[in-house]
Amino acid sequence: MTIAVGIFGASGYTGGELARILACHPQARIAFVTSERHAGKSLSGVFPHLASLGDKICRPLSDSLASPDCDIAFCALPHLTSMDVVPKLLAQGVRVVDLSADFRLRDPEVYREWYGEAHRAPELLPEAVYGLPELPGMRPVIAKARLVANPGCYPTSVLLALAPLLKEQAIASDYLVIDSKSGVSGAGRGLSQGSLFAELAEGFRAYKTTGHRHTPEIEQELSRAAGTGIRVRFAPHLIPQSRGILTTCYARPTQERTLAGWQELLSAHYREERFVRVLPAREYPATNHVRGSNECRISVDMDPRTGWLILLSVIDNLVKGAAGQAVQNMNIMMGWKESEGLEQLPLFP
Amino acid sequence: MTIAVGIFGASGYTGGELARILACHPQARIAFVTSERHAGKSLSGVFPHLASLGDKICRPLSDSLASPDCDIAFCALPHLTSMDVVPKLLAQGVRVVDLSADFRLRDPEVYREWYGEAHRAPELLPEAVYGLPELPGMRPVIAKARLVANPGCYPTSVLLALAPLLKEQAIASDYLVIDSKSGVSGAGRGLSQGSLFAELAEGFRAYKTTGHRHTPEIEQELSRAAGTGIRVRFAPHLIPQSRGILTTCYARPTQERTLAGWQELLSAHYREERFVRVLPAREYPATNHVRGSNECRISVDMDPRTGWLILLSVIDNLVKGAAGQAVQNMNIMMGWKESEGLEQLPLFP
Amino acid sequence: MTIAVGIFGASGYTGGELARILACHPQARIAFVTSERHAGKSLSGVFPHLASLGDKICRPLSDSLASPDCDIAFCALPHLTSMDVVPKLLAQGVRVVDLSADFRLRDPEVYREWYGEAHRAPELLPEAVYGLPELPGMRPVIAKARLVANPGCYPTSVLLALAPLLKEQAIASDYLVIDSKSGVSGAGRGLSQGSLFAELAEGFRAYKTTGHRHTPEIEQELSRAAGTGIRVRFAPHLIPQSRGILTTCYARPTQERTLAGWQELLSAHYREERFVRVLPAREYPATNHVRGSNECRISVDMDPRTGWLILLSVIDNLVKGAAGQAVQNMNIMMGWKESEGLEQLPLFP
Amino acid sequence: MTIAVGIFGASGYTGGELARILACHPQARIAFVTSERHAGKSLSGVFPHLASLGDKICRPLSDSLASPDCDIAFCALPHLTSMDVVPKLLAQGVRVVDLSADFRLRDPEVYREWYGEAHRAPELLPEAVYGLPELPGMRPVIAKARLVANPGCYPTSVLLALAPLLKEQAIASDYLVIDSKSGVSGAGRGLSQGSLFAELAEGFRAYKTTGHRHTPEIEQELSRAAGTGIRVRFAPHLIPQSRGILTTCYARPTQERTLAGWQELLSAHYREERFVRVLPAREYPATNHVRGSNECRISVDMDPRTGWLILLSVIDNLVKGAAGQAVQNMNIMMGWKESEGLEQLPLFP
Repeated sequence: MTIAVGIFGASGYTGGELARILACHPQARIAFVTSERHAGKSLSGVFPHLASLGDKICRPLSDSLASPDCDIAFCALPHLTSMDVVPKLLAQGVRVVDLSADFRLRDPEVYREWYGEAHRAPELLPEAVYGLPELPGMRPVIAKARLVANPGCYPTSVLLALAPLLKEQAIASDYLVIDSKSGVSGAGRGLSQGSLFAELAEGFRAYKTTGHRHTPEIEQELSRAAGTGIRVRFAPHLIPQSRGILTTCYARPTQERTLAGWQELLSAHYREERFVRVLPAREYPATNHVRGSNECRISVDMDPRTGWLILLSVIDNLVKGAAGQAVQNMNIMMGWKESEGLEQLPLFP
Repeated sequence: MTIAVGIFGASGYTGGELARILACHPQARIAFVTSERHAGKSLSGVFPHLASLGDKICRPLSDSLASPDCDIAFCALPHLTSMDVVPKLLAQGVRVVDLSADFRLRDPEVYREWYGEAHRAPELLPEAVYGLPELPGMRPVIAKARLVANPGCYPTSVLLALAPLLKEQAIASDYLVIDSKSGVSGAGRGLSQGSLFAELAEGFRAYKTTGHRHTPEIEQELSRAAGTGIRVRFAPHLIPQSRGILTTCYARPTQERTLAGWQELLSAHYREERFVRVLPAREYPATNHVRGSNECRISVDMDPRTGWLILLSVIDNLVKGAAGQAVQNMNIMMGWKESEGLEQLPLFP
Repeated sequence: MTIAVGIFGASGYTGGELARILACHPQARIAFVTSERHAGKSLSGVFPHLASLGDKICRPLSDSLASPDCDIAFCALPHLTSMDVVPKLLAQGVRVVDLSADFRLRDPEVYREWYGEAHRAPELLPEAVYGLPELPGMRPVIAKARLVANPGCYPTSVLLALAPLLKEQAIASDYLVIDSKSGVSGAGRGLSQGSLFAELAEGFRAYKTTGHRHTPEIEQELSRAAGTGIRVRFAPHLIPQSRGILTTCYARPTQERTLAGWQELLSAHYREERFVRVLPAREYPATNHVRGSNECRISVDMDPRTGWLILLSVIDNLVKGAAGQAVQNMNIMMGWKESEGLEQLPLFP
Repeated sequence: MTIAVGIFGASGYTGGELARILACHPQARIAFVTSERHAGKSLSGVFPHLASLGDKICRPLSDSLASPDCDIAFCALPHLTSMDVVPKLLAQGVRVVDLSADFRLRDPEVYREWYGEAHRAPELLPEAVYGLPELPGMRPVIAKARLVANPGCYPTSVLLALAPLLKEQAIASDYLVIDSKSGVSGAGRGLSQGSLFAELAEGFRAYKTTGHRHTPEIEQELSRAAGTGIRVRFAPHLIPQSRGILTTCYARPTQERTLAGWQELLSAHYREERFVRVLPAREYPATNHVRGSNECRISVDMDPRTGWLILLSVIDNLVKGAAGQAVQNMNIMMGWKESEGLEQLPLFP
């Protein structure tokens, strides 16, 4: 069976990545792509690397909303925009994977606090499914969902490392420190001085060391895993490279285990997972070990002197942190093999 | 007055940086440079950017030890080597700034534990001065020292951020988390697969997330500042860029202050310092804001939700983290203006 | 039908890339990989990005030569080594795609001149097929070949741009200037100071501006296309990036055409080609438009003031410049669809 | 003697570099800086690396024009703007080093052709001095000039390599091929998609392979050196790095010399020059060998097979290619030591 999919917001890096992946998906066919800014232009004019999809013309959003000729829509629109678009798609019977933040937070008050506006589709929040398939119990829910809220890039890297340990009550829920580092494609393709090559090269930096909008999303899902309210210290940084997130988590264990024991705990948890790999002791994941792939790699180290755990996780922010995970969710929604279209190995070097 | 200085170990990045800085120092004259590996070769053959110093020939270590015709020697030799060289220099009346780790740890047992061999000049440890001039009370001691142990690059970035707060008992001494990121020149000029361009580009990674040898140095000096024993969680990372360290510290305050209050505390502490700059609120330091200069920049943020402080500090690992700080120490030892030869502004972009 | 393939020399960047591509090839199965240096180690230990092939153990060369259980062997061995290995494989009935330079030059005297040793399998040179499928008349010859000499990376980028014009006698055969720029993976994974990150970042440079070993290969094939002996000025450069070659060719036309006419000439030539794309006027190819893919992109510009043509071509040096082209050759040898296993779109950004 | 200097257009990379260099110049004092876009803002707000000049406020252009309280003005304004500003400065007795293109071309018709507007101060063109001090006979003229047109970055790299050879009639004036590569700071600090990190990293490309505006400037000065009209093939490229230009020139010699003879010719020509270094045979210049310094390095190679010369030159585009050369010109205008304020060694790595 082949289905038709639409990409709303195809001219950003996430949209381009969706097009790259879906173009090779054996069961999905890109029916249309939209771009307000580049409406009427060919997608390959916007993204020269997609030249082999060159006859695909960017449609204006309104056209595609009027007749969304697709079975599943991927919304890679900015937050605050997505919540106006998604209800219209659902109303026309289109299932949606939304890559914005608009349907990730369950509490509309929290949304208002962090995104500055009241939610305009709060009635959809209860049914929106947080689409991180590797979290316990998520797959059956995703399979039946009309609306999947695709997780943020930082939260994906954090949750895959910490959720299993919190669920097992193996680490303390207080004092969690999360230090994340992201390649600059995470800042999008918009024009800003901070994204210029000459500003970033040799210029590693932190930003929003308090108040980053992924904080409440991380806390919501960690709290759910732990069964108790959790607050985190979360500081994001910008790496002078295009892709990749590495997150370093510092956690105080509440159980006595050897390093091998901690690894076994994580390995056992992810044994059946195609896209999560727990590394052997003293192997360190690097962002270029997963670049271009939907993989997450996790390592755990234990500091014998303080007793604390240090967890590392890496993902490609545009794949497992966005477009790849969205396709993984589609595969689950359609009942296909979960790795369909996502079998590519990482590109190194 | 002009003095003669010698550079032991001139063919590494730190040695090259010493040559670059000292070549423009108005009161120091490079009398000789040594390199075991490149003995007999011109320094400009080893470092083409130093071509204007081209007639300078690398001497073998033994020659220079036999007749160290200099007033001050900079030892940029590997650890385990330096402790054999320094005593001979001191015995011949040469004052030494040692850039290795060999004289930084006061306790020879700690040295043995972390560096794997018994210290071979333990009698010098009591007199060796830890040369971080901005730490309280250090300048008069440095001024009189025969042997200055130049701090490590990571410790410099950590201590400048945390020592004042610990000294004021303003943060808790437990639960300190230190997440450091360094450019790859910190790994030296030696040949290893991990330092190849194609391995590092797009390949942010962590290494030695427990057990990095700068850990005991950090703890020793933080403990001294705090007046109590301190253990830290310290994880270093490698940035795909050549120079620069950014360190992110997470600390639990023990005093009630506003963000402005925290900034004022740090600003007041460093008001008279030429090489430390405390940034205004919500300004984030970047490694390319200090590249090529002896500056350290520090910012503090307070998370209103957890109450924790997040401190950022940046330095150029080869300057304030090594060669620049060594020259600063020399200036103090000689009674010169502390910034002599270190006035260059950062090179950006 | 599925065949078994072997990769000789799997621990270099080209070998790793062969493994990456072949692992997803629907009709080829990697039977074994060899590495002298890493014999006994798992391939994923050598290349962490290939972890999903992790149970594959690197065999020593001799073992695999003794019983080369494969239908086609890819030799990604160093030149001078390959010419000893290939005859043994052929003798055992294995067809070979050789990625070294050993079978590219038809004249053993030219080989000796440029590679410093007498050729040890000169009897194979007449039957070795230069495997650039897009050159006129090559496909039927490749299809039947026992031994395909896979072209060098620079020559591939040069020949695809210039051969059609020389064949048409549309440009002069003298005064050709070829200025090539390559990412550093082209220098291999070996340890050399010149390949260190800190030496290359911000350090664009030229090397071997005369005497690069790809020169005779370029001249041999350009001469064949032109039907006359050709000498070129060829200077290679190193770009601070991992992958990609961009070649700029300067040529004096011998025919009168408009810019549109020149484009039409090239476009017509490549109309049926899946892996060569001629760009519209004033569009410039970039190396990251083809990264990770088997595409070559070519543009032509005409300088109205001098009348000369400026041709640009880009490829991924590890794909169309090495492993991808090798797989393309295998597909032709096996009579499969030429793009089998090579459908991946470029990875951008 | 100390003089007051003004920087018009301080918020671009060239303006920032002027401030960096002039801040450490022993005889010049920055009296004011202007920026239309950032008027009222501190210079350190615009360029955090210049924090030690932090009390310097950007003035609007009009204010500074009304009372240009300086002895020498550096105009780092866009072309088409500079030609309106410079006459007003000269009229008030201020000597000017203009870093725009507005006064480099002697023929106003050529200016109109390449810059699209009629020149609005053609009466100044005859007296404007092309400020490349190393060109024969320039120093006395620069010394007396009211208006120095500071050369473009590409032309500087080209002229220093080719002018001596053309002056000696040692190379043919036809068939010259000039292939230049520049770091991205050359494109300025303006916001454009093409300057984003994620677009450039791993994305080497060419641009304006015909029609770049530095072409007529190169031709004008090469023609002057040769004493005959010269047309060049000139193609610029963008390197994924911040600073540096490497230019590769291909020239047909008209004299018989050995490689050593060619080197001697160039070396002899530049023997007395502080800022030009001719390299020994088979040494290749790299952009990071001159980064941050006012040096130009040149090498020459001779292809024994075609007889052609291949010349390489490297400069830091922001220093010898802009701000450093401007300060060098000021030093000559003031009768100071030519290297005053320009003694810094390159920053490597």
